[in-house]
Amino acid sequence: MEEQIKWDEKGLVPVVVQDSTTKDVLMVAYMNEEAFDLTLKTGKAHYYSRSRRKLWLKGETSGHTQEVKSVYVDCDNDTILIMVNQKMAACHTGFWSCFYRVWDKGWKVFGKKVFDEKEVYGDTEDLQ
Amino acid sequence: MEEQIKWDEKGLVPVVVQDSTTKDVLMVAYMNEEAFDLTLKTGKAHYYSRSRRKLWLKGETSGHTQEVKSVYVDCDNDTILIMVNQKMAACHTGFWSCFYRVWDKGWKVFGKKVFDEKEVYGDTEDLQ
Repeated sequence: MEEQIKWDEKGLVPVVVQDSTTKDVLMVAYMNEEAFDLTLKTGKAHYYSRSRRKLWLKGETSGHTQEVKSVYVDCDNDTILIMVNQKMAACHTGFWSCFYRVWDKGWKVFGKKVFDEKEVYGDTEDLQ
Repeated sequence: MEEQIKWDEKGLVPVVVQDSTTKDVLMVAYMNEEAFDLTLKTGKAHYYSRSRRKLWLKGETSGHTQEVKSVYVDCDNDTILIMVNQKMAACHTGFWSCFYRVWDKGWKVFGKKVFDEKEVYGDTEDLQ
């Protein structure tokens, strides 16, 4: 079918995640077909972690889940956009959005911390 | 430097492009270091075309340039977000955004055409 998603050579596509209320871009992650299907089926954003090489329910450790409101595909069928209701914050560093640094002759932090990542995740490296 | 961009094995990073007025996500493209530097230097979005394997000034054919208002990097330093003032429309298909199809038991077009892509690009395959 012409309109099918074009998974890349690793079976993945990038996914832009936007908050449905503020329209802030929260993060970019990757889905494989299983993550895409689970996201549609459960209404909660699932991704494929390239570093940990496994399926990942966003918020499985932190509780900061993403309730999916709508799912879009781009003209090339190789990028997904999802609109979500983000619980607490998207970024494992404690910021609302992963894009908390802006270019101003170097990267400058402008976002505000929403939670203390050490309290949420402890000392684990499993920061999702 | 810790805060440097992490270019992937092909020397690229994905770039999310958001309209600064509407906050609509317009497209996702890729930059190499040259495109990134030119974008900062000129204030107009430049990308690297993976299919054509060359640097690309967005709007060089169509005139639908993107005036860059701000540039962000994510927590992992491997994804860029830019806020732009989009002339006319972002998508080479004539839609305002490349994300003009939403999932509803299949992909359904919901966006509206802003321009006639055949008038703008003629019969060229060089749809940028």
